Amino acid sequence: MTDQVEKWGLFEVSCRARVSGNPFEADFGAEFQHSEHSVKVAGFYDGEGVFKVRFMPQIEGEWTYTTYSDVRDLEGQQGRFACVAPSSDNHGPVGVVDSLRFAYADGTPYIPVGTTCYVWNLQGDELEEQTLRTLEQAPFNKMRMCVFPKRYTFNMNEPPSYPFPRKVTQSEKTSRTGEPSNDWDFSRFNPDYFQHLEKRILDLQRRGIEADLILFHPYDSGAWGFDRMPAEVNDRYLKYLVARLASFRNLWWSFANEYDLFPERTMQDWDHYMQLVQQIDPYDHLRSIHNCMAFYDHTKPWVTHCSIQSGYVHRVPLWMKKYGKPIVIDECGYEGDIHMVWGDLSPEEMVLRFWIGFTLGGYVTHGETYVNPEEVLWWSKGGQLRGESVPRIAFLREIFEQAPAAGLTPIGRIDNETVNMLEGTPGLFDQSSDVDRIIAEGRWNVEAGGYCGNDYFMFYFGMHQPGSRNFNLPPGSFRIDVIDTWNMTLESVAENASGEVTVALPGRKYMAIRIVRRA
Amino acid sequence: MTDQVEKWGLFEVSCRARVSGNPFEADFGAEFQHSEHSVKVAGFYDGEGVFKVRFMPQIEGEWTYTTYSDVRDLEGQQGRFACVAPSSDNHGPVGVVDSLRFAYADGTPYIPVGTTCYVWNLQGDELEEQTLRTLEQAPFNKMRMCVFPKRYTFNMNEPPSYPFPRKVTQSEKTSRTGEPSNDWDFSRFNPDYFQHLEKRILDLQRRGIEADLILFHPYDSGAWGFDRMPAEVNDRYLKYLVARLASFRNLWWSFANEYDLFPERTMQDWDHYMQLVQQIDPYDHLRSIHNCMAFYDHTKPWVTHCSIQSGYVHRVPLWMKKYGKPIVIDECGYEGDIHMVWGDLSPEEMVLRFWIGFTLGGYVTHGETYVNPEEVLWWSKGGQLRGESVPRIAFLREIFEQAPAAGLTPIGRIDNETVNMLEGTPGLFDQSSDVDRIIAEGRWNVEAGGYCGNDYFMFYFGMHQPGSRNFNLPPGSFRIDVIDTWNMTLESVAENASGEVTVALPGRKYMAIRIVRRA
Repeated sequence: MTDQVEKWGLFEVSCRARVSGNPFEADFGAEFQHSEHSVKVAGFYDGEGVFKVRFMPQIEGEWTYTTYSDVRDLEGQQGRFACVAPSSDNHGPVGVVDSLRFAYADGTPYIPVGTTCYVWNLQGDELEEQTLRTLEQAPFNKMRMCVFPKRYTFNMNEPPSYPFPRKVTQSEKTSRTGEPSNDWDFSRFNPDYFQHLEKRILDLQRRGIEADLILFHPYDSGAWGFDRMPAEVNDRYLKYLVARLASFRNLWWSFANEYDLFPERTMQDWDHYMQLVQQIDPYDHLRSIHNCMAFYDHTKPWVTHCSIQSGYVHRVPLWMKKYGKPIVIDECGYEGDIHMVWGDLSPEEMVLRFWIGFTLGGYVTHGETYVNPEEVLWWSKGGQLRGESVPRIAFLREIFEQAPAAGLTPIGRIDNETVNMLEGTPGLFDQSSDVDRIIAEGRWNVEAGGYCGNDYFMFYFGMHQPGSRNFNLPPGSFRIDVIDTWNMTLESVAENASGEVTVALPGRKYMAIRIVRRA
Repeated sequence: MTDQVEKWGLFEVSCRARVSGNPFEADFGAEFQHSEHSVKVAGFYDGEGVFKVRFMPQIEGEWTYTTYSDVRDLEGQQGRFACVAPSSDNHGPVGVVDSLRFAYADGTPYIPVGTTCYVWNLQGDELEEQTLRTLEQAPFNKMRMCVFPKRYTFNMNEPPSYPFPRKVTQSEKTSRTGEPSNDWDFSRFNPDYFQHLEKRILDLQRRGIEADLILFHPYDSGAWGFDRMPAEVNDRYLKYLVARLASFRNLWWSFANEYDLFPERTMQDWDHYMQLVQQIDPYDHLRSIHNCMAFYDHTKPWVTHCSIQSGYVHRVPLWMKKYGKPIVIDECGYEGDIHMVWGDLSPEEMVLRFWIGFTLGGYVTHGETYVNPEEVLWWSKGGQLRGESVPRIAFLREIFEQAPAAGLTPIGRIDNETVNMLEGTPGLFDQSSDVDRIIAEGRWNVEAGGYCGNDYFMFYFGMHQPGSRNFNLPPGSFRIDVIDTWNMTLESVAENASGEVTVALPGRKYMAIRIVRRA
């Protein structure tokens, strides 16, 4: 019987061979063929004499393959498999649609409601499995996580293993200096390290979570030096990652966290990494790069979406206009109580930033940094969630997953001064929009708003506490819901509204009004 | 015995005369003389045959005066008075010092903590006196108020009287059309109207409140047409106001509320009004002009300080740098629950905006718009205060009145993107400031901060809820206070701190840390 693989599943060819010299330098891969369609895919050395090539078929039906290599034992091996329909929870990889939106390959809309556990995958099985159990109860469908270990405040532990072997053995070196050696053999990889990473990415996949994998980060603090490897090692590392991981359908490439904090890298380096992966990734997975202070130029063609760090969530419409790509605020600050401003947001502020960002048609990512004696902060190590924003984010996700798949066009209280300040974006807002008639007092009368045609309107009021709002509805009949985003209640206040309506509100903070055309 | 007038008090000369023709057109005034110093002051017609000239002496000692006029009975009258030391609660008029600050003429620092009751003075004595009683219990030392009546939502009532007489009598007109006539005789004024205004300005003066008098506003809605008087009437009106009011020491000239909402006026008109008053006001009272959307160019030399409408209170440092004048955010939104976004701030948001603005070295003005059956909203008619921000603003005033008179230099979380956006202000922030060393994690680590030399530091955390902050204190010994801006508590957590310190915070919102050098 022919092997069967789901569409967007992972087909793996495994070969054993003895190689003289460095097996990581062997040229190995396979060409996969489906009638007229063929895909050439690089393989990789997985240690212990095993070479692998992985493939994610995107077309159902009969596939054949032939390996290629400069190693005789690895060359010319042939096989076949049947690509069958995907199972119900397999929608394929996520991509960009309609410029500003995401969807799975099968067309199912995808709204990223992410969280951040930078090195949860390097904490040992006990904690890692706790993280997975937490995720099963949490509302998140994207995880920001790093390949490399992290050395930083609250992150002083060594990882269980390392991505590269050492030039000298641990015992030799320790016996001389008493300290572990960071004298890495960058000509080889440590397959165990990457096998574990893959296991965790698959654990996420099984839970419906995209892995937004951070390829480089600057939080090394001289501990290991993975933030300053030689240029050819960076390239070899990227090629190895693509060979190993590109066939995982829930993978996104995040080229850096805070790319602008790497003192030794130029903008050309970052351009190069992104171009390289764009060129060699057979599946064109999502590519982004995340800033600290200075934004990368997200208009560059290899950037698929904007991965932004900023607490200025009101700027979603400006960024949409400037970059013309989906806006994911991957760091708006974290709920917590640490000694730093980016990790001490109250849950109210976190939820407020989520609601503003999503209402304006963008996406906001969660993180949590509550101090605890174990120094296991979710944002970095995973573990347990303690914050009050999480259930509110679950409520938000439910509501925005009911919004039109085309996404929301933003409106809001961005003032002339802000618009004038943003260079190069004249005509940022269509001042003649219907919305100015629909909100009786004009678009300025909400903290944030988003709409879809004349059919769907979401208005969020944040720290305002209105007693009412007036609307002039477009022709037709509408349902009007009053949403308490903090207390997580939704009340339908009108089932068949039309024309001029006053919507009463309770004079509390964190309220929203949703107006939806009746079918 | 010679008449005695306090320095910065009001000396008034009153003359009776019969004038053929329009007495408002008579030329009348006086020259006041003190040794080598002389001041020529215009008088005005106050009705019923009485002409007055008013004078605010700014030098103690013996003054003489001689009137001038083109009316024989009013010309050449002479007199004298003694200008004596001011009483303890008389500090003179407020002016600008050190570019960004205010002080009374006697050097006492003045920190504007204003409120807004646009037409409280046109509501009849019962309500007006209730407003005055409310102000006696309130923390406000500046009142934004209009000369002209207001017609707008929640403001549908007629004023008790009008600034101009009608061309035809009310009874004549009403008998013809059934409606009151707005056929004003703009060649005359109604002295009663202005006498009442003066009475209320003096009522404020007695309570230590500056009258930030709004000379024009666009909320007329065709009710009376005072927003579209002929050009020569506007000039005559301004001259009449200066003659009547400039001698009141608690007077500020606010040329408009929302100047940019007058459809029929050009920027040159506004320049002209401000230049005219600058030229004829003998005491050079403060002059400002308040925007709706588009800021007036506050760098123009006749503007003494920036009267800003914006909810973007984080921009205080940008405006300071751009305009180089004191920043008064006279409208950041109002606490209330009305159906409009500018009048439905929660008290928490109002207090937050106050704390950010004051910590950054600016000033923020209060207003309140809670719906009530009587439609007496504080922001417009005065009456009673209902909001929860008022006691917190009293607490804030107490704290900022203890800050160094030189004022606070701002620091805060304004990001590169914002700074880059503001054209024409390179080098906005001195990146080499000591403050970056003093806040262990750098200036970004506060929601808003202000400091004075190496002696005084205020750090505000807003919607953040830090558990701690670290500081590297400058050489010397410091007292450290933890302030709960919402619960209005101040706790000294260290009396003699020095060097590196960690300040524990309770993990709640709305906290601040004050660090003050010990004497």
